[in-house]
Amino acid sequence: MRAEPSAPLTPAALPAQAEVLVIGAGPVGLFTVFQLGLQGLRAHLVDALPHTGGQCAELYGDKPIYDVPGVPVCTGRELVALLERQIAPMAPVRHLGRRVEALSPPETEGGAWQARLDDGTVLAARAVVIAAGVGAFVPRALKIEGIDTLPPDVLHYHDAPVPPDTAVVVHGGDDPAVLRALALTADPDHPPVVLLHRRDVFQAPPEALAALSAARAAGRIQVQVGQPLRIAAQGGAAVLTVLDAEGQEQALPLGRLEVRLGLSPRLGPIADWGIALERKQLVVDTARFATSAPGVYAVGDINTYPGKRKLILCGFHEATLAAFAVAERLSGAPVALQYTTTSPRLHQRLGVAPVVAAD
Amino acid sequence: MRAEPSAPLTPAALPAQAEVLVIGAGPVGLFTVFQLGLQGLRAHLVDALPHTGGQCAELYGDKPIYDVPGVPVCTGRELVALLERQIAPMAPVRHLGRRVEALSPPETEGGAWQARLDDGTVLAARAVVIAAGVGAFVPRALKIEGIDTLPPDVLHYHDAPVPPDTAVVVHGGDDPAVLRALALTADPDHPPVVLLHRRDVFQAPPEALAALSAARAAGRIQVQVGQPLRIAAQGGAAVLTVLDAEGQEQALPLGRLEVRLGLSPRLGPIADWGIALERKQLVVDTARFATSAPGVYAVGDINTYPGKRKLILCGFHEATLAAFAVAERLSGAPVALQYTTTSPRLHQRLGVAPVVAAD
Ligand SMILES: Cc1cc2nc3c(=O)[nH]c(=O)nc-3n(C[C@H](O)[C@H](O)[C@H](O)COP(=O)(O)OP(=O)(O)OC[C@H]3O[C@@H](n4cnc5c(N)ncnc54)[C@H](O)[C@@H]3O)c2cc1C
Ligand SMILES: Cc1cc2nc3c(=O)[nH]c(=O)nc-3n(C[C@H](O)[C@H](O)[C@H](O)COP(=O)(O)OP(=O)(O)OC[C@H]3O[C@@H](n4cnc5c(N)ncnc54)[C@H](O)[C@@H]3O)c2cc1C
Repeated sequence: MRAEPSAPLTPAALPAQAEVLVIGAGPVGLFTVFQLGLQGLRAHLVDALPHTGGQCAELYGDKPIYDVPGVPVCTGRELVALLERQIAPMAPVRHLGRRVEALSPPETEGGAWQARLDDGTVLAARAVVIAAGVGAFVPRALKIEGIDTLPPDVLHYHDAPVPPDTAVVVHGGDDPAVLRALALTADPDHPPVVLLHRRDVFQAPPEALAALSAARAAGRIQVQVGQPLRIAAQGGAAVLTVLDAEGQEQALPLGRLEVRLGLSPRLGPIADWGIALERKQLVVDTARFATSAPGVYAVGDINTYPGKRKLILCGFHEATLAAFAVAERLSGAPVALQYTTTSPRLHQRLGVAPVVAAD
Repeated sequence: MRAEPSAPLTPAALPAQAEVLVIGAGPVGLFTVFQLGLQGLRAHLVDALPHTGGQCAELYGDKPIYDVPGVPVCTGRELVALLERQIAPMAPVRHLGRRVEALSPPETEGGAWQARLDDGTVLAARAVVIAAGVGAFVPRALKIEGIDTLPPDVLHYHDAPVPPDTAVVVHGGDDPAVLRALALTADPDHPPVVLLHRRDVFQAPPEALAALSAARAAGRIQVQVGQPLRIAAQGGAAVLTVLDAEGQEQALPLGRLEVRLGLSPRLGPIADWGIALERKQLVVDTARFATSAPGVYAVGDINTYPGKRKLILCGFHEATLAAFAVAERLSGAPVALQYTTTSPRLHQRLGVAPVVAAD
């Protein structure tokens, strides 16, 4: 694995054996890291989200799931925690909050694929496993008239410092919106923040809701109930027009608009990587889970093959066979099956037995 | 499902929806029952062993396994317990300690397969999932000269009543042998029992070893160290000749020989069922895990396909796709994916939500 000068990787994060890139840290990407680790391969793991777990963490963190074999019941988040515990010995190099924008084929046969992240980092890998699920989770965009006419640095989907005396509108009704509004009013010199949501009901942990009440009572947060309609310039400044609960239009001066409408998955750039797709899924074989691009594999919800079912347990199987295929490709030799129960080599990789000198 | 008159099934065990037979109750057979249950299908489950769990229970019950996804570590036996908890809502009809001897194809198209068990029971099923692993676990046979010449009712591999005043030799060194010898000497009128093993070291729980010491001290069990050599008739009675630790031959009178050398898997009759095999594995496709016999599926260690790895987690995936295929075959219609997290129908089948009137 190597990285461009701009990459924030420390030398320790670039061991010789880190030859595999895993795109997507949902349940299947996580288990791919584990299976690669059993093969003696250390993975780099990239996800657009700032945390691992994919759909399990993002879409049903608190809901129970019953069909992970051997786990009679767990929530989405609990499953992620179990997988994190399991893969800990494999210590992947994590690039969280980073989207893979481009993937370019090796220039020479057997050379490395190049993945460019949205911060400009370039990762090179001799094999790539795409575990991108239903796509990268990215902030849901606000689509209203005039939004493209906003001056630079007004519209924000991610937290970033706000200049003093800026009139901020935070738009959204869940934790991220509530927490963002509270964070901005923590500075007593900051002017009151407008929290815009279609109803006067907010979804957030009890402590956050209590803090919201206090901030409203103190006049630090003003809740505006309504739907954003359009953005226009008025006397040099931007104004957001909102349709309020009574059907009246309200004009909100807009120094800054912080949109926090949650995340939605976007397949995005994967479709442009020149890999065979079928109805937006990567086509793979069922022996190696290889795509049409040599050295690139696809596992989990992102792939398709005859009989495919988008289930986590199926992704686990796919990840396992893909890891064998990667190991065979990189070593150029067949890899025999070993059991975690009995293999000293696997015990060493799992960190459950003393490390022996030679592998 | 129907059974011949001789079958010990109660009417309650014969619900209309019990249309699928699962052969083998290893981890993969157990999970097949679960996935069939999610499809609304109740299974009959047969295993040659008196308990479920297959290789996990029989070959590494106390050893740790690390690669069941979401279960960072568990012993073979713990995995079986987790799976049993998970499948409990599906309440399969169990036929344990029964070997499937023969499987005959339907007489009419779309009719039922007939499975004959070793106790004569015949089970009929419109679909069969073979999860027979490395074969039926059956007692390891003692193969020495003259063993075929023993009169009937002398050689026993399973516990059965012993007539009074019979000179019994129990052969073996593990729990089953030790426990059998102890059980036979529980009756004070029974003559002392000979426990034959190649070394004077026995593997059994501490309580059993303590009881063995006491029974030896009391002269109720005589340990004979040595290797059995041959059996011959001497003056009308059978005699077992043993080579003892000093290299001397010893003659043991043989009223009854109870062999307890553990279990070993035997593919046995499956090879004769007219289903396509490749190196003793059943050949399947990877979309439905269907064998060459319509309505018969194979999952887990018993099957083969390009890329096959004999791992438990792969069997879980195979079981899932096979259950979808069975459901589609029996209903004649495509079955859509539902999530256990969100589907009211699956909640009902899992028993985690109130049963609604119609399905
Ligand atoms: C409500 C709900 C309930 C469900 N219930 C069940 C159930 O009961 N049982 C079951 O088996 N399944 C269930 N599922 C489906 C299950 O969650 C998915 O099958 C599973 O999450 C797929 O895992 P994955 O790792 O393939 O993809 P995902 O979980 O989708 O993770 C993919 C990850 O890749 C990242 N990514 C994608 N593209 C890029 C990129 N270019 N750069 C960086 N990162 C990228 C994404 O941000 C994401 O985190 C449910 C799904 C939902 C929505
Ligand atoms: C020492 C050891 C360590 C292992 N470690 C691991 C590991 O770390 N990870 C991993 O994934 N796998 C491991 N395995 C392999 C794993 O145990 C098998 O893949 C798994 O047990 C296969 O499950 P199964 O249900 O297909 O078959 P089995 O577990 O073999 O069960 C098949 C069952 O079918 C029954 N049966 C067969 N034929 C008949 C018949 N005609 N009638 C009635 N019953 C029948 C048998 O009695 C048996 O109980 C290990 C295996 C061993 C031996």
